[in-house]
Amino acid sequence: METLPSYAEDIDGGESPSISMLSELAAARKITIVGGSIPEKASGKVFNTCCVIGPDGQILAKHRKLHLFEIDIPGDIKLKESDTFTGGQKTTIVDTDVGRIGIGICHDIRFPELAMLYRSKGAHLICYPSAFNMSTGELLWDLMQKSRAVDNQLFVATCSPARDPNANSDYMIWGHSSLIGPFGEVLAAAGHEEATVIGEIDLSTIQSTRHAILELRI
Amino acid sequence: METLPSYAEDIDGGESPSISMLSELAAARKITIVGGSIPEKASGKVFNTCCVIGPDGQILAKHRKLHLFEIDIPGDIKLKESDTFTGGQKTTIVDTDVGRIGIGICHDIRFPELAMLYRSKGAHLICYPSAFNMSTGELLWDLMQKSRAVDNQLFVATCSPARDPNANSDYMIWGHSSLIGPFGEVLAAAGHEEATVIGEIDLSTIQSTRHAILELRI
Repeated sequence: METLPSYAEDIDGGESPSISMLSELAAARKITIVGGSIPEKASGKVFNTCCVIGPDGQILAKHRKLHLFEIDIPGDIKLKESDTFTGGQKTTIVDTDVGRIGIGICHDIRFPELAMLYRSKGAHLICYPSAFNMSTGELLWDLMQKSRAVDNQLFVATCSPARDPNANSDYMIWGHSSLIGPFGEVLAAAGHEEATVIGEIDLSTIQSTRHAILELRI
Repeated sequence: METLPSYAEDIDGGESPSISMLSELAAARKITIVGGSIPEKASGKVFNTCCVIGPDGQILAKHRKLHLFEIDIPGDIKLKESDTFTGGQKTTIVDTDVGRIGIGICHDIRFPELAMLYRSKGAHLICYPSAFNMSTGELLWDLMQKSRAVDNQLFVATCSPARDPNANSDYMIWGHSSLIGPFGEVLAAAGHEEATVIGEIDLSTIQSTRHAILELRI
């Protein structure tokens, strides 16, 4: 059996420096945090995991990336996430102080079924912590966020690492964290460099959008 | 009961000048035609209908628009298609000389379920004769075509009337007929004026795309 990567953190065992930091921050600021994703070790496996933390610092929900990424474009990029990671088995939707949030990680956004499921369960917002690369970024990053938002008439937020043009890696990050509204409109967006982005969500626009273009699927 | 509009044509009764014209053209050129859409009268109702015609001039399939369009954006545009039209009840997928084609009309493109169904039935191409307006066109036209193509990794073709800036109508046409590949790439596209657009489809790129980014849903 392969050795677990040393940087994987034991969230359930309470030995996760990343989640401890986010938990302290959430409690100190009394805010809800969707905390990106980290490698989580559990039961001898490694998952790609995102925690949602409430204003009391407690973990409200934990999402393990469902759809592991595999790409093989000859002469461009090749990657097989399942060499290291195990896929999660559960969808994650959670009620927070700022609305009902569905969680997906990166490649999870490529699957319309997940977003449709979250909509059917009343999600106001779907958050996708992600790390698209230069190939998938240019082709798919905007398209996926906007179509998930428009098809389901809800908000979509993505958060990506910034791009490091000097990184010694063949996986160059696309960046461009965004907040998208139910009409596919860009409410806030970063470039590819480090940035803090602030966007405001008016939940009532979900209903007004659904009214404006009446859907048979309500 | 409302009087049927005089311009509606009786396709099943063989009294449709539009379909007769397309049928003669298909037979003369020995080509397959997906013939836009026309108002069809049948059983005392009016449908928004697209015919697919084979190289022998026979009708291969007839799609009645499933999802009638209703829009109500205060101060911008209001329209209720069901005041005149009745919605169809069946999906339409047809084998032709140039591949297996699924048909949707205009607002049908807004429903991911229809495209997913066509993919599950082996469609190579989905054709959506459409007439988006200036509001929905700017927001949704590109987005819908590309996301249906990418989510299902197949080809999408749309055909729109040209825009007439002098038209005495509050429904100004968006235009921009397009052919989109399985990666969301634009293979051919018109502007908003009258144009003939020629695009070439290589069906093998469906499989190579599905291989390049491996999907769990095969």
